[in-house]
Amino acid sequence: MDILDIIENKKKAKELSKEEIEYFIKKYTSGEITDYQAAALIMAICINGMTQSEILNLTISMAHSGDILDLSDISNNIVDKHSTGGVGDKVTLILMPIIASLGIPVAKMSGRGLGITGGTADKLESIPGYNTNLSIEEFKNNVKEIGISLMTQTLNLAPADKKIYALRDCIACTNSIPLIASSIMSKKIASGANSIVLDVTCGKGSFMRNKQDARRLAKMMNLIGKWAKIKTSCVLTNMDEPLGYSVGNNLEVIEAIDALKGNMAKDVKEVVMNLAIQIMNLANFQSNTFECKKRILEVIESGKALEKFKELVKKQGGDVSYIENPEKFEKAPIITPVISEESGYVEKLDAYKVGKAGLELGIGRKEKEDSIDSRVGIIFNKKIGDKVKKDEVLAYVHANSAEKSIECVDAIKEAYKLGNKKIAKKNIIEIIN
Amino acid sequence: MDILDIIENKKKAKELSKEEIEYFIKKYTSGEITDYQAAALIMAICINGMTQSEILNLTISMAHSGDILDLSDISNNIVDKHSTGGVGDKVTLILMPIIASLGIPVAKMSGRGLGITGGTADKLESIPGYNTNLSIEEFKNNVKEIGISLMTQTLNLAPADKKIYALRDCIACTNSIPLIASSIMSKKIASGANSIVLDVTCGKGSFMRNKQDARRLAKMMNLIGKWAKIKTSCVLTNMDEPLGYSVGNNLEVIEAIDALKGNMAKDVKEVVMNLAIQIMNLANFQSNTFECKKRILEVIESGKALEKFKELVKKQGGDVSYIENPEKFEKAPIITPVISEESGYVEKLDAYKVGKAGLELGIGRKEKEDSIDSRVGIIFNKKIGDKVKKDEVLAYVHANSAEKSIECVDAIKEAYKLGNKKIAKKNIIEIIN
Repeated sequence: MDILDIIENKKKAKELSKEEIEYFIKKYTSGEITDYQAAALIMAICINGMTQSEILNLTISMAHSGDILDLSDISNNIVDKHSTGGVGDKVTLILMPIIASLGIPVAKMSGRGLGITGGTADKLESIPGYNTNLSIEEFKNNVKEIGISLMTQTLNLAPADKKIYALRDCIACTNSIPLIASSIMSKKIASGANSIVLDVTCGKGSFMRNKQDARRLAKMMNLIGKWAKIKTSCVLTNMDEPLGYSVGNNLEVIEAIDALKGNMAKDVKEVVMNLAIQIMNLANFQSNTFECKKRILEVIESGKALEKFKELVKKQGGDVSYIENPEKFEKAPIITPVISEESGYVEKLDAYKVGKAGLELGIGRKEKEDSIDSRVGIIFNKKIGDKVKKDEVLAYVHANSAEKSIECVDAIKEAYKLGNKKIAKKNIIEIIN
Repeated sequence: MDILDIIENKKKAKELSKEEIEYFIKKYTSGEITDYQAAALIMAICINGMTQSEILNLTISMAHSGDILDLSDISNNIVDKHSTGGVGDKVTLILMPIIASLGIPVAKMSGRGLGITGGTADKLESIPGYNTNLSIEEFKNNVKEIGISLMTQTLNLAPADKKIYALRDCIACTNSIPLIASSIMSKKIASGANSIVLDVTCGKGSFMRNKQDARRLAKMMNLIGKWAKIKTSCVLTNMDEPLGYSVGNNLEVIEAIDALKGNMAKDVKEVVMNLAIQIMNLANFQSNTFECKKRILEVIESGKALEKFKELVKKQGGDVSYIENPEKFEKAPIITPVISEESGYVEKLDAYKVGKAGLELGIGRKEKEDSIDSRVGIIFNKKIGDKVKKDEVLAYVHANSAEKSIECVDAIKEAYKLGNKKIAKKNIIEIIN
């Protein structure tokens, strides 16, 4: 077998065989196939697409390119959750303690932010002392002892996916549905979950810009899940505006604590409730939707969910006093209001523009090596559908320099668009099982 | 401007602007754009094609990526010749001394063989002492003094093309018509010719496998020529079987000497005559085809063309006694006949299979760094249309080891196919001005 023949076949839009895909993944992971050959093949895949059987073979090859985590000694009912990424997406921090307090084991590895989309690992690390780098034994023990562990990906899981993902980022091939589906599912297969709930974000602040593409992606991931014998459920959620009322690492942790106390922004609540119900279904809770909702609200109102989050933070070395007194989180030195120059209803709050502005503030990384500032971010006073009067505060920018503050205030003004009518918004687009 | 946007545009089959193409060529030549980004863009070009204006912009950008040779102090009527490559193609060695002896200045840079197609520079270097590495002053002086110089490409001509050409070879993107056309024409523009005759080979032993593609390529090169104000003429020639009766460096030089003495294989003669007539037309010879032919035959029969070749060899340090006594060329140690196992007419002599077999013998290089053996090769006793009796010799394999000899004899047998009827062959397919 020869990489040139494989590239030539895909260039001509021929279906690659299982052996050809395995050969490529194996030799690219080991470095025998060069980056430029992989780039040519990936571009041919982006343009000419992949058949279902190619996508399945690619996913399974990438999943098996490194370690496969075995969690069967904890439970045969491990539910994982994954989001295709968004701006202000703090759902994991709220959802997973709720799930754990319902008695469903949570063993979740989270990524870091890259580009405009934030990462749960960065948010957790803004809690002083919180250790995201556990050994696999510590990770498993935590789940056994307190029913939850959230860490970053330290194992050699799906290294082929890591290489291809990084390459795609440099060759304008990030938005290919077959490649996104196989990337997500290969990691999930390698991480040992028995079932997965996928939050497929759709809109300006995500990879999928329209519902058709989001639906295609969801269906493809369900299909891969079925084939890999992993129960999979997709919740399509709106990502036209940022989720919740804050963007930024400290600020989002504070919002998450508030949410676990029952003060949840409407859009966050919709997403959390829907994902939680899907997880309960996959975990074989014999309850209808109404009963599921009731049980979720119970663990929030009783304080059990917040207690579980504190247990998690303590277990992983974090300073629980920050969770008990969120005002302890360090504030950014410059906090500036964004003032509305007109009256009306918020028609748009562009998640992409907010994400870009947040990146400039230092919330995330432009390059993998960049450092981040956990203090900076944006708090939204007004979101889509809200009434705004002239001179009212739209948002607050938390910045670490006057220059960045000014730039960000302008960018956030740009992200808002006011109109004459109150716009109805829908955060859950569809559930695809 | 950003390379990611350029790649994204071509991925979506959008037309790239002049500025985008210039940016890519400039930054790729300087190394600021990586090989994997270039590979992704080139694959997108291969699949989605290029418009005429993109091809023109690419050609001119590559032509200007390095030095531009100025030959105007020699003549304003420099005619260049280029072949898109073939097996057994020794045309330059025969044609250019004929042209020079007709009084048309010849200043030609030739490449080395890569893959199954041979290179004129390798053939010239099989003449002991012949120096293909001249300085640009020596090159020009030789043309001024004796009317001819043949050297290899030593100047920094179209370095962008060199990089892209080498990359295309490693990513299965060699057979793209826009990329072939722009590659050839960029080199020719940079090498300072006023007019160009292009031998566009078509068939099993060349990049263009069918006439439609060869025609498209020819028309595209004519168009670029017109645009760059270089008179261009394309001769489509058949490359289903090897050209002439020999393949291999020493063997082809011997055949070329024989041809300059008037003993020209029928197919070689057709190609040489047609190319020569086109060159004479472009050089403003006020003669009709019949008169042109007459003058060509005159310089051969009078010995002037062979004399010019000897002058060239002597001027560039070569041992002329080899041209006078071709039997001085070192022979390969093992010469084995390929015997026909049946009677009939030669229906096929597959140039691709011969080329591959020749590569294994050591005629050419599999990798750029490989060394070659100028002694080895194949002499054909029978070509398409010839009658063959059982046990007659089809060809002779000249090898440097018994093992390679056996392998090659089998491969050459494979390349022949006999049938019941005599097949008419046509070496000149079409002339496209």
